[in-house]
Amino acid sequence: MFITLEGTEGCGKTTQVAPLAAFLRKQGWDVLTTREPGGTPIGEQIRAVLHNLENTDMHARTEILLFQAARAQHVEQLIRPQLARGGLVICDRFADSTLAYQGYGRQQPLEPLRALVDYATGGLKPDLTLLLDLDVEVGLLRRAKGGEWNRLDALEVAFYQRVRQGYFELVQAEPERWVVVDASLPPAAVQAAMQAAVISRLQR
Amino acid sequence: MFITLEGTEGCGKTTQVAPLAAFLRKQGWDVLTTREPGGTPIGEQIRAVLHNLENTDMHARTEILLFQAARAQHVEQLIRPQLARGGLVICDRFADSTLAYQGYGRQQPLEPLRALVDYATGGLKPDLTLLLDLDVEVGLLRRAKGGEWNRLDALEVAFYQRVRQGYFELVQAEPERWVVVDASLPPAAVQAAMQAAVISRLQR
Repeated sequence: MFITLEGTEGCGKTTQVAPLAAFLRKQGWDVLTTREPGGTPIGEQIRAVLHNLENTDMHARTEILLFQAARAQHVEQLIRPQLARGGLVICDRFADSTLAYQGYGRQQPLEPLRALVDYATGGLKPDLTLLLDLDVEVGLLRRAKGGEWNRLDALEVAFYQRVRQGYFELVQAEPERWVVVDASLPPAAVQAAMQAAVISRLQR
Repeated sequence: MFITLEGTEGCGKTTQVAPLAAFLRKQGWDVLTTREPGGTPIGEQIRAVLHNLENTDMHARTEILLFQAARAQHVEQLIRPQLARGGLVICDRFADSTLAYQGYGRQQPLEPLRALVDYATGGLKPDLTLLLDLDVEVGLLRRAKGGEWNRLDALEVAFYQRVRQGYFELVQAEPERWVVVDASLPPAAVQAAMQAAVISRLQR
């Protein structure tokens, strides 16, 4: 069972990972929680290239390809082995983020991105993707209060609205894979909705 | 004018780059000679990840994506600017090498590789590709004498025969782009054939 969490900035998904994993471990599952680039030595080396502040002239396609290289390694070295052991994986952002952020948000052509993502994942698809959906301005305000102002946060609200709309289109294209959770609810209610969605999927 | 050189091991293309560039400079051309990853700082950082001997668990798709990331940067930072200045570029191996070596040689599916390569190059295609064609066993013997025995040379002759056959299929698919040069001829004769092919293309 491969579960991914998606959402725009400030939706609170990252803080929901640990309680969701704890809940599933109590149910007897062997749970791996991860996020890209996944903490493998090769992923960390790629991350260092991406985050090197001297690389100001990195082309957009170079950046996307480096993210996909890290993703391929993450999938093969961590995610697939855990799934092969019969374990459960919770991954904070995955391939849908590339489509939502680069494709819809930055308005790069979707079809080449899809081909690239399929190549990087080797066709691995999540069994369940939880979209923690939140009004964009509410999310950005939350994030600003949290002090985690980063490069993406400096982009305009319109960008995040395109990302949110992109997520909605991804949900419409594969409704059986996605569950949309109202992330404006209190954290405990969001967690309860997430747990209910996972349990429902596991019982199928 | 964007010229690429292709061929299997020991075909002698690398030693032909400098005399070809010198010849074209005498004709008044501003010539850039290059090879992947192209010597840009970002390309060198990616090369370091690829060549790190500790990365023994690098997955095949990770490796291919890293090569494409380096290629995207090489194209955007070096090749396109030189072409935009009206200059001439001679590149020792380019996208066709990925198709010939990874696709035909290592027998990975061609269509995903083509999509990946098109993404990395942003659709940039050579105006002329010179294939220095040589019997595979002759080439491997040449290379062994030269002392440049590397990881690829350790693979079997059958691999290089698939690569050579792959080049032939690429030529058949786009005969107007390719010129096949008999690399079993003495180096001066190979150079003369290359110069003739470039001049003929420039006069079109």
